[in-house]
Amino acid sequence: MSISNRKIRLGMIGGGSGAFIGAVHRIAGRMDGQAEWVAGAFSSDPQKSKKTGEELYLDPSRVYATYSDMIQSESNLPDSERIDAIAIVTPNHLHAAPAIEALERGFHVMVDKPMAFSVEEAIQMQKAVEKSGCILGVTHTYSGYPMIKEMKLRISRGELGDIRKIFVEYPQGWLTLPLEMEGQKQASWRTDPSKSGAGGAVGDIGTHAAHLAEYVTGLKILELSAQLKSHIVGRLLDDDSAALLRFEKGVTGSLIATQVAAGEENTMKLRVYGDLGGLEWSHGDPNTLLWKPLDQPMQVLRASNGYLSKAVSSLGRTPPGHPEGFLEAFANLYMAFFNAIRAHEKGIGSVPDLPNVLDGVRGMKFIDAMVRSSASEGKWTLIA
Amino acid sequence: MSISNRKIRLGMIGGGSGAFIGAVHRIAGRMDGQAEWVAGAFSSDPQKSKKTGEELYLDPSRVYATYSDMIQSESNLPDSERIDAIAIVTPNHLHAAPAIEALERGFHVMVDKPMAFSVEEAIQMQKAVEKSGCILGVTHTYSGYPMIKEMKLRISRGELGDIRKIFVEYPQGWLTLPLEMEGQKQASWRTDPSKSGAGGAVGDIGTHAAHLAEYVTGLKILELSAQLKSHIVGRLLDDDSAALLRFEKGVTGSLIATQVAAGEENTMKLRVYGDLGGLEWSHGDPNTLLWKPLDQPMQVLRASNGYLSKAVSSLGRTPPGHPEGFLEAFANLYMAFFNAIRAHEKGIGSVPDLPNVLDGVRGMKFIDAMVRSSASEGKWTLIA
Amino acid sequence: MSISNRKIRLGMIGGGSGAFIGAVHRIAGRMDGQAEWVAGAFSSDPQKSKKTGEELYLDPSRVYATYSDMIQSESNLPDSERIDAIAIVTPNHLHAAPAIEALERGFHVMVDKPMAFSVEEAIQMQKAVEKSGCILGVTHTYSGYPMIKEMKLRISRGELGDIRKIFVEYPQGWLTLPLEMEGQKQASWRTDPSKSGAGGAVGDIGTHAAHLAEYVTGLKILELSAQLKSHIVGRLLDDDSAALLRFEKGVTGSLIATQVAAGEENTMKLRVYGDLGGLEWSHGDPNTLLWKPLDQPMQVLRASNGYLSKAVSSLGRTPPGHPEGFLEAFANLYMAFFNAIRAHEKGIGSVPDLPNVLDGVRGMKFIDAMVRSSASEGKWTLIA
Amino acid sequence: MSISNRKIRLGMIGGGSGAFIGAVHRIAGRMDGQAEWVAGAFSSDPQKSKKTGEELYLDPSRVYATYSDMIQSESNLPDSERIDAIAIVTPNHLHAAPAIEALERGFHVMVDKPMAFSVEEAIQMQKAVEKSGCILGVTHTYSGYPMIKEMKLRISRGELGDIRKIFVEYPQGWLTLPLEMEGQKQASWRTDPSKSGAGGAVGDIGTHAAHLAEYVTGLKILELSAQLKSHIVGRLLDDDSAALLRFEKGVTGSLIATQVAAGEENTMKLRVYGDLGGLEWSHGDPNTLLWKPLDQPMQVLRASNGYLSKAVSSLGRTPPGHPEGFLEAFANLYMAFFNAIRAHEKGIGSVPDLPNVLDGVRGMKFIDAMVRSSASEGKWTLIA
Repeated sequence: MSISNRKIRLGMIGGGSGAFIGAVHRIAGRMDGQAEWVAGAFSSDPQKSKKTGEELYLDPSRVYATYSDMIQSESNLPDSERIDAIAIVTPNHLHAAPAIEALERGFHVMVDKPMAFSVEEAIQMQKAVEKSGCILGVTHTYSGYPMIKEMKLRISRGELGDIRKIFVEYPQGWLTLPLEMEGQKQASWRTDPSKSGAGGAVGDIGTHAAHLAEYVTGLKILELSAQLKSHIVGRLLDDDSAALLRFEKGVTGSLIATQVAAGEENTMKLRVYGDLGGLEWSHGDPNTLLWKPLDQPMQVLRASNGYLSKAVSSLGRTPPGHPEGFLEAFANLYMAFFNAIRAHEKGIGSVPDLPNVLDGVRGMKFIDAMVRSSASEGKWTLIA
Repeated sequence: MSISNRKIRLGMIGGGSGAFIGAVHRIAGRMDGQAEWVAGAFSSDPQKSKKTGEELYLDPSRVYATYSDMIQSESNLPDSERIDAIAIVTPNHLHAAPAIEALERGFHVMVDKPMAFSVEEAIQMQKAVEKSGCILGVTHTYSGYPMIKEMKLRISRGELGDIRKIFVEYPQGWLTLPLEMEGQKQASWRTDPSKSGAGGAVGDIGTHAAHLAEYVTGLKILELSAQLKSHIVGRLLDDDSAALLRFEKGVTGSLIATQVAAGEENTMKLRVYGDLGGLEWSHGDPNTLLWKPLDQPMQVLRASNGYLSKAVSSLGRTPPGHPEGFLEAFANLYMAFFNAIRAHEKGIGSVPDLPNVLDGVRGMKFIDAMVRSSASEGKWTLIA
Repeated sequence: MSISNRKIRLGMIGGGSGAFIGAVHRIAGRMDGQAEWVAGAFSSDPQKSKKTGEELYLDPSRVYATYSDMIQSESNLPDSERIDAIAIVTPNHLHAAPAIEALERGFHVMVDKPMAFSVEEAIQMQKAVEKSGCILGVTHTYSGYPMIKEMKLRISRGELGDIRKIFVEYPQGWLTLPLEMEGQKQASWRTDPSKSGAGGAVGDIGTHAAHLAEYVTGLKILELSAQLKSHIVGRLLDDDSAALLRFEKGVTGSLIATQVAAGEENTMKLRVYGDLGGLEWSHGDPNTLLWKPLDQPMQVLRASNGYLSKAVSSLGRTPPGHPEGFLEAFANLYMAFFNAIRAHEKGIGSVPDLPNVLDGVRGMKFIDAMVRSSASEGKWTLIA
Repeated sequence: MSISNRKIRLGMIGGGSGAFIGAVHRIAGRMDGQAEWVAGAFSSDPQKSKKTGEELYLDPSRVYATYSDMIQSESNLPDSERIDAIAIVTPNHLHAAPAIEALERGFHVMVDKPMAFSVEEAIQMQKAVEKSGCILGVTHTYSGYPMIKEMKLRISRGELGDIRKIFVEYPQGWLTLPLEMEGQKQASWRTDPSKSGAGGAVGDIGTHAAHLAEYVTGLKILELSAQLKSHIVGRLLDDDSAALLRFEKGVTGSLIATQVAAGEENTMKLRVYGDLGGLEWSHGDPNTLLWKPLDQPMQVLRASNGYLSKAVSSLGRTPPGHPEGFLEAFANLYMAFFNAIRAHEKGIGSVPDLPNVLDGVRGMKFIDAMVRSSASEGKWTLIA
């Protein structure tokens, strides 16, 4: 049966019980009834993987001990059973190898961010995508929010006039204490250079901030002057970063990405100003976009309303005033991924509204530039 | 296979393409991977029902022309295929008959609110529940929000001291214009007494407000003094209601439920005050609960945090700072429904945290009291 | 020297050191450099009065032991020295007598709210104003906020279309505990029927709410259905009130005025809806007015901006973004009072934008109707 | 008569009708009844100065044609008439000369910010202060807000633990268009290097931001890496600045001060994080301070409440819930100025809570460092 007439079948690498982002992928993937999770290699611990499979009501024969097992076994299944795509939700150092193997076997891939452990790995992934012709998505979740898409559309239509300033910030406080020394799992790998790569906060959330700024404005960061820091004795990666930015077209700005802003939850904020006005979006109230026309009253644009761009208001699963959140934004990425897969089957060369392997490579280069600039006393450094 | 080891199978009555609440039920029912939609009688128009089934990738043999067809045919299927429960998402006048028929055949039922067309119908549903022993849930969605549950828990623990005042309001603006005269579907049946019942705004959203106030405080409204109004010439039901309230234990309060507050979206707000402080929750920011201890700084309680009651923080599907919304609250009701069904199979007499048939009956009596009080010049009227 | 070429000279009755509202009047009266405080009878305790005079750097000869002393002595001073106007900031039962005596001697009067102890007293004050031809202002402070005036202007221009709903609320929490039994001065007289009159919360803050609703909309409350309550054993006046309202032209609404909403400070809020949109103002952010046009984005109107009505933006003492507050609103009332006094000297029959004796009388009738309605089980009661 | 028993007498240089900040000084100086404006040299245009004097009801003999006239004439008046202090509210290039002349004649001085045209001038002013022994205040208004003082106190008491991050931002949008080319007075001198000095936005508002960050935390900025820009062709001074910051004790941070953030009013924001929590204050709601203890609910601290530090709650002129604003903060600076003058007369060597000449010098050095760093490609530059 053509993929057009059935649900897409998904497998997962990583995401054993208790993990954060695996569960998020699972909810997002199934939310709109376009796909089902049918296979998984959830953990390096086979018992844990098996248990996760049971919790998900999976056929035990499709819960695998290793990701290679899964990729190989699934590729041998008949068309009517085989998974179509694989989500990779492991720590950074375990992104590239399974992604490349999956792509080589013809599976589409959704991979968590940052896309890889290093720029080199990211480039290898890019080559694998190009060679396989498969779809690879990167979960820069915030770009999935409808009001972010409205912000992007309004800027692309010139409603801000000439862009001048871009301020993006992503303050968190959860790494204020040395949680990794108490064995907290999320903290442990994120602060471990052998698992996380060269960036700490700059990789974990700085890449989100940089992607969002570029995605919304359509302007690339050309160079940056950064200050990274670790505030905990013995912590090997930055838990705090900031930069002055130079974008294309003479636009300037700044970026903050810190995980030691004690008391902050997860409130990314993006502000863009042109000579006709400003737009502001905050993750604290993601269904709202503030439009500040010069010398006129600020307008509060709200999700799902008819006055939004048609493409945006149609993203609303509920009428105005019914808040949607992080999971729905995540599901919007999956929806774009599914649409791309269906177009791919039909041989349609679509450009889905989905962060892709090039965005992933760019994210790794951003981390690299931030680390290098900071190491050279904030020297203005090109994102090569 | 026991229902403990598999997904629960769901059917739907109503909810053809284009309907609002049917799609919400479907997302909520599938979000957490505990159930799957496998059957439906989506529309009185068989073609439309068929089309909806295709969009949902259903087996065509389980898309039915009428709800009676579905109930009868499904009850004849073997245990390994038959649906376990049915969601009813039709207009009010089509709730009782399918619910009673489904219960009589042993299906659990999730029904939209208000539960019925009249107090009489509601009582018949109550009898059918009692006779069948099946689970019936009513989708008073707002009671599914985690921070509402935190509010309820804090009040039940006495943190407000003696409750004195309860203010609840539910302002919407979408019926400001006579949309029903332009054929808008949602407006048409809601303003039609032959489909909606005796209440307009008071039934559609007033019941939500009354239920939430009682759910959170554990206090019943004893009597009320109401003023209902229709602001549109020719509109046969109220589009606007307000009441002064008397609760148990001498607590007083007020309720506003209006659909002509032009420019308002859907911002229900509940405020409760005792002699030790106040608690405030607003649907405009549902992940936040404001705790206002007397003579101390207000505290901003936020979803998913460790400082919340354990039962509440565990409802979070994401860490603090990742907004969840209406669909997740709805899914929390479905999760309680599924838990109740699984407990039922095991013969465990649970009391799930789910609005049930008694809440549904009470909602109908509330509508009745509001209509009668308003008709008698605001006379204080008991909720019989 | 004509009053046009000099500062207006003010005296005060009440407002000894430690009082709240006396100090507010003094700041407001002097803020814009149009007047100076030169005389006072600040307390029934002559020592206290003397001390207050010293703190204000007054000439000791113009600090009086009684208000009658002040009125008589000042009226005997030469034109070049005599005060022009008197502020009365005593408890309610001490408003009418000094006001009438002052008016009879030709002094203009600014009196705190509610204007009097009873409807009867208020009517006597009205007669004294009519007889004397002098100016009498009542400090319904909230009507002095620029954004309230913008709200009024927009409604009067028809921007809301036909008005349908008016919601006004004034929640405070400071009388949650029986402060009057601990001797707290502000609480003591406000809860004492021999000083406060027939209304507690309904007089102290309900009159503000009712005045604001009528002032902004230009619509009078015709009748009301009220519920008053005292939540403290032994408290003789209501500390909590609410009402359903019927305004002119078929407009309906509700009012809340309570002093037992524990944890609330002083956040009056007014919302008005017509068939073209809604306007909302809250004392929590008084420099902002929310304009909610139907089916369009909400606009956030901010004080001092050029896009406001000219009469309103010119009220700003500072550019946009420099918050002004309660004292500035109060000073706006005094500015209107001074303008009226200067116009009066020139024989110009102006209608200043200042709550006057008729508003004061109306406030007392509002209290009376609220008390009577509540006493008769919420019977709809005319404001006679 | 000793200054303890009378109002302080003030003169003003600059501030002719139509100017913004002169009127603000006048309101602030008179608000609390501690002083009166009795003399002025309001404009280089004698007619304009005369007219301003009339509007202020001044004795015409004390309205002067030049500031030197005023300083000389007033110093020749008898003790019982002579002004005590002078406010200087002219553009930056006209601060130092009159300030020095006034100090030399024994007048206390309140001068607008930035304190001078250049570092050199500032140092001359410092010498004049030291030589004269007089009081010199600089109007860094934001440090006058009570909740800023609460923030400072809490940090000094160690409630944040070890400080790690300081973010300060001051976005305005009013210079988005080339207003100076249309003759707008405020824009003209601020963008003119011959009047404003070396800094545009960085001088006008960056100095406020830097001062506030240092004032609140007690930590000095050691070095900075800056990016300044002018976004308007032909504009000779920066209208936009940003910097990464290094404070004492290893604390890092960032600063934004821009006047081309179209649509922004005047919303300075300061956030400080330590290892125990964060504190946030925004000029958008200056009566609120957000306290974000690590892993605990955020607390919303509000002005005038009893739970604040005693020194702070006593600054409130009104009870909680009565917003105070910019003018009251400004008046708090004047109050400190007056207290210092009174202490000075008594020979008490007080350290008033008032930005002084050292703060003014520091502000000029901050401008200088920002300009130099930006000119050298963001090189980390010491505030010498």
